Amino acid sequence: MGLFTKPIKSLDDLFVHTLEDIYYAENQIASTLPTMIEKASNEELRDAFRHHLEETKGHVKRLERVFEMSHQSVRGVDCPAIDGIINEAKEVVGDCDDETVRDAAMLSAAQAVEHYEMTRYGTLIAFAKQLGRNDCVSVLEETLVEEKAADARLSGIASHNVNRKAA
Amino acid sequence: MGLFTKPIKSLDDLFVHTLEDIYYAENQIASTLPTMIEKASNEELRDAFRHHLEETKGHVKRLERVFEMSHQSVRGVDCPAIDGIINEAKEVVGDCDDETVRDAAMLSAAQAVEHYEMTRYGTLIAFAKQLGRNDCVSVLEETLVEEKAADARLSGIASHNVNRKAA
Repeated sequence: MGLFTKPIKSLDDLFVHTLEDIYYAENQIASTLPTMIEKASNEELRDAFRHHLEETKGHVKRLERVFEMSHQSVRGVDCPAIDGIINEAKEVVGDCDDETVRDAAMLSAAQAVEHYEMTRYGTLIAFAKQLGRNDCVSVLEETLVEEKAADARLSGIASHNVNRKAA
Repeated sequence: MGLFTKPIKSLDDLFVHTLEDIYYAENQIASTLPTMIEKASNEELRDAFRHHLEETKGHVKRLERVFEMSHQSVRGVDCPAIDGIINEAKEVVGDCDDETVRDAAMLSAAQAVEHYEMTRYGTLIAFAKQLGRNDCVSVLEETLVEEKAADARLSGIASHNVNRKAA
């Protein structure tokens, strides 16, 4: 068992653990996005990162509401997955000499982050539905819709702008 | 720069780097699935893992074809993202006392893996299209279709079987 984690005895415990996992992840993403905004040379990509930073702050607030609705104290647990995704992003971005190629690498890294969030929110919604927690479902779905839209926006920027400039 | 990685100077280099990243990831997944099959108590989930292990072996072979088509030697690079996702899965699965809850945790972990693969194949396809490598696009798309189907299958098993039993 990880340090400071509680044993998981029920689906409700697993729901709370997953909530703590994505809460840590959202906070890590909010800490990392300012560096990505600074490093992006493409204006449209920079704007997308700026927009997503604002959204991410909102996702953190929404998660705090879900903790409250679940009568749980707000806390994060270590999330080796998001740490790995962010470390890999830093590595590959650091390996890129050319700024247009670096933009393509950052965009790809941001989509890996989006997909991690999409899978965790998808799981949380499935657990909440099973547990009859429809109050949580609707709050979590608001964020999932935004994560999917952010990913689709990045795909569009990749194909009509960033990847073209990198090629 | 990571040890043994090459500098990334062009979109073509970034394409090859991403190929090496997912090649390592697919191999890690193929090594991890037998343990998940062994630990799953739910028969439908175990069958889904078994089926995906066979698919994963096929994905490795397809990637080897894409390396060949790109005149590159087959190699993997360290992928902290998949290592993090797999380590997190091991941690949470180890924290579950109850076998039905453990199944729900394993299913959720498998979906995080699927989403990582979906984002990487999506990126590879976008890069290959931009580089005019339509031969690679069609091979990579075959795998992406299978990853999306595997994720959808797991969502179905979660809602009609595994999460119900865990609740």
